Amino acid sequence: MTGNKSSTKKELIAKENFSEWYDNVLLEAKLVDDRYPVKGFSVYTGWGMSIAKRIIGMLEEKLEENGNEPMQFPVVIPEDSFQKEEDHIEGFSAEVFWITHAGNNELERRLLLRPTSETAIYPMFKLWMRSHQDLPIKMHQTCNVYRYETKATRPLYRGREFLWNEGHTAHVDYEDAEQEVRAAVKAYRSVYDRLGLSYIMLKRPEFDKFAGADYSIAFDTWNPDGKVNQIGTVHQLGYNFAKAFNLTYEDDNGEQVLATNTCYGMGFGRTLAATISHHGDDHGLVLPPKVAPRQVVIVPILFKGKEDIAEEYAKELYGLIKDAGIRVVLDDDNRLNPGDKYYKWEMYGVPLRIEVGPREAQNKKATLVRRDNFEKIQVDEANLIKKINETFQAIFEKLRDKSKAKLDSLVVDAYDMDQLQVYMDARMIVRVNWCGDPDCAFNIKDMVSGEIRGTRWDVKEEPTGNCIFCKDEAKYVAYVSRTY
Amino acid sequence: MTGNKSSTKKELIAKENFSEWYDNVLLEAKLVDDRYPVKGFSVYTGWGMSIAKRIIGMLEEKLEENGNEPMQFPVVIPEDSFQKEEDHIEGFSAEVFWITHAGNNELERRLLLRPTSETAIYPMFKLWMRSHQDLPIKMHQTCNVYRYETKATRPLYRGREFLWNEGHTAHVDYEDAEQEVRAAVKAYRSVYDRLGLSYIMLKRPEFDKFAGADYSIAFDTWNPDGKVNQIGTVHQLGYNFAKAFNLTYEDDNGEQVLATNTCYGMGFGRTLAATISHHGDDHGLVLPPKVAPRQVVIVPILFKGKEDIAEEYAKELYGLIKDAGIRVVLDDDNRLNPGDKYYKWEMYGVPLRIEVGPREAQNKKATLVRRDNFEKIQVDEANLIKKINETFQAIFEKLRDKSKAKLDSLVVDAYDMDQLQVYMDARMIVRVNWCGDPDCAFNIKDMVSGEIRGTRWDVKEEPTGNCIFCKDEAKYVAYVSRTY
Repeated sequence: MTGNKSSTKKELIAKENFSEWYDNVLLEAKLVDDRYPVKGFSVYTGWGMSIAKRIIGMLEEKLEENGNEPMQFPVVIPEDSFQKEEDHIEGFSAEVFWITHAGNNELERRLLLRPTSETAIYPMFKLWMRSHQDLPIKMHQTCNVYRYETKATRPLYRGREFLWNEGHTAHVDYEDAEQEVRAAVKAYRSVYDRLGLSYIMLKRPEFDKFAGADYSIAFDTWNPDGKVNQIGTVHQLGYNFAKAFNLTYEDDNGEQVLATNTCYGMGFGRTLAATISHHGDDHGLVLPPKVAPRQVVIVPILFKGKEDIAEEYAKELYGLIKDAGIRVVLDDDNRLNPGDKYYKWEMYGVPLRIEVGPREAQNKKATLVRRDNFEKIQVDEANLIKKINETFQAIFEKLRDKSKAKLDSLVVDAYDMDQLQVYMDARMIVRVNWCGDPDCAFNIKDMVSGEIRGTRWDVKEEPTGNCIFCKDEAKYVAYVSRTY
Repeated sequence: MTGNKSSTKKELIAKENFSEWYDNVLLEAKLVDDRYPVKGFSVYTGWGMSIAKRIIGMLEEKLEENGNEPMQFPVVIPEDSFQKEEDHIEGFSAEVFWITHAGNNELERRLLLRPTSETAIYPMFKLWMRSHQDLPIKMHQTCNVYRYETKATRPLYRGREFLWNEGHTAHVDYEDAEQEVRAAVKAYRSVYDRLGLSYIMLKRPEFDKFAGADYSIAFDTWNPDGKVNQIGTVHQLGYNFAKAFNLTYEDDNGEQVLATNTCYGMGFGRTLAATISHHGDDHGLVLPPKVAPRQVVIVPILFKGKEDIAEEYAKELYGLIKDAGIRVVLDDDNRLNPGDKYYKWEMYGVPLRIEVGPREAQNKKATLVRRDNFEKIQVDEANLIKKINETFQAIFEKLRDKSKAKLDSLVVDAYDMDQLQVYMDARMIVRVNWCGDPDCAFNIKDMVSGEIRGTRWDVKEEPTGNCIFCKDEAKYVAYVSRTY
């Protein structure tokens, strides 16, 4: 779809120039096309959607193991449902799209496109919740949500339509909801971990929690441009929505008791953006084998007079690899020369390339080329499948370790505002001592353009000095960074 | 979620009373909940969405084998794109939802929710289409579309939001598009066939084709209430949209040539409705094994003092069946007695039940009970997996054959209007000779409340008399039925 490339080898763009590199990879690797004629709305194209579908499948499987039933709620929410939880309205009302007409009629009641689905889902939970035996209720849905973002949009990172999965649950009490928070975190981690993504788990400060939540936990990843990328959140909603939607159930004594809720969301756009940005290199995408739509590409190297040998052997290897359940493509398009094919499949990030020439055919061998480091590996046909699977694991570990090393190198400590400023300018993720006062957070943001993103949720960190801004006693170790 | 049923065995509703039966099954088998507070918008609940996901997976796999890349286009279409193809506007403009505001602002340009995506997709095809080497372009997407239906809505059959998959393609010429029409028909058939659904393939009359198409092919299935259910359509768009969107490409001679398009859509709501309605019985759903979220349920029968033997053997069988890749559930919820469990899993349509008591445990046997005919089958543990798979196939064939026999029994010939009226009142699907004049079709509809749905696409049928209405020479054998 991107035209005939047989005669024009394009120049590579260094990943150092992240913004240009990213825009180029999106189009060249058919991830996303941002030229849709409505601002903030993009098209997921073939390769991008294929990867997204695999990430979606990984998450959905985990959630269903966790007991979340797949459901699908309408995209429209009536205005009166939306307005039931006060903090929630305040948080979202400036961002919603309104449907006011249908056909030639004005609607009697305006409808909004869901910016998130609490206010669509909880009125139905109410119908399903009679006794404690009906609890917990646990669902999930993969869908698009709509937010009229006023900040600059960027494909996958920030759009007005975004593809996510949201989980919603109702529980008999606060402790059961706490357990669900931990279960959701575990499910999310298992997906990010299999993508080789490094991240920090932060409990967001009060002023930055989800509108209507008791508290919010977020997964923040690093990004090459120094702006942290939030790829998922898990929220303890406590009794807030249960009160607003009158979510009660009858307990063993016949009394009506208020339920509790949790909700959680994983943005597939941002998770895909992180996968692209963490692992990619100057040649384009580098995909973890688990989510690569094609995991192996076979490229026959044709020598005049010996075309048949290589072509036949390439087909033989193709059958062998396919039968082993590996997603393989045989690139036998003779309009392109091998070099152009390498360029193309490297851009697509296919983890392994197999080059097949007459010499390989005669010796029943294969030459594997790793996408991540271009290492060449000779292997006998008899050991091919085993070697491919081992190499997938090696590639995955390398990607994961590099991503982790990068994150570790970005996290630094600052003890005064000058130091913080220097690190912010260097696009680091900075640990500071913080008193907990939102005013200090706002002042920090004004001064250094970095936001207090929260405190570690997974490990306990003790402050080692006074608040970096006001110098009062610090209560927290907070993470400061630029952000999408 | 539907409350504690341990002490209240509900009464069954006969399928004869289709409307009541259907509404009851939707709720009891957790397929769809229609109580969402916006007219025409329903919630897919756990069991329904699980089945739908399997149907979706079957279709997507076939389409991707056919070369359609998965994509995802925005739900919003700008007004000016929507208005480019005249017949298309005329067909859909009375049915679209309009977004006019966002946050507190009025939008400069109104956006509509897609009623179908031609006008969202073809402007992007234009960007991707330079030379003939870029063709064909073939994509598919699973998404919801939105139509402000004024007819009575009914969950899964007719809603204002409906879940479907749409395929869109662009080709070098008309013949290539014709081939794609045939390929799409084949992909659709493979899904319906695996669901055991019987259907008639009709070429819609001119006055009922898709707005903007050259011609439309539809899959019509029977429905217990006598209204035919259209579960999928395939459209040859010819040059109509290509002209409207200026879809040209450069041919070998460097000249700009107009492309052609096809599109096709499968409604998952209606396909699910057909699966429910064709195969269900007085006890509830009967699911084809391929799409049953759970294919086997094991129910331990506990005798006092011998609970352990049956429970342990039930677990052993569970492990055995699960390891064979069969979707099995062990219902060991001791709040319910076996009879209540039977009731529940029969309502869910699980194809096979295995009853496990102390006698089965001692003899290393299992008793299989088929959901479709309640036949009991004794089998040794050693032959269990083989027998389960054979029985799945037998159930599938039985469902398929029954659906086909029902369709055959519904199709009759009428040669005059009185006869047609009698058959229409009996809710049959009636073959008539037709001159082809739309006025005759409209008169027929006025007189007998049946619509001319089209002429067979897959087989050639020759008229055997004059037009049933005007008595002029007949050109076609047309199918008349009531319809959703």
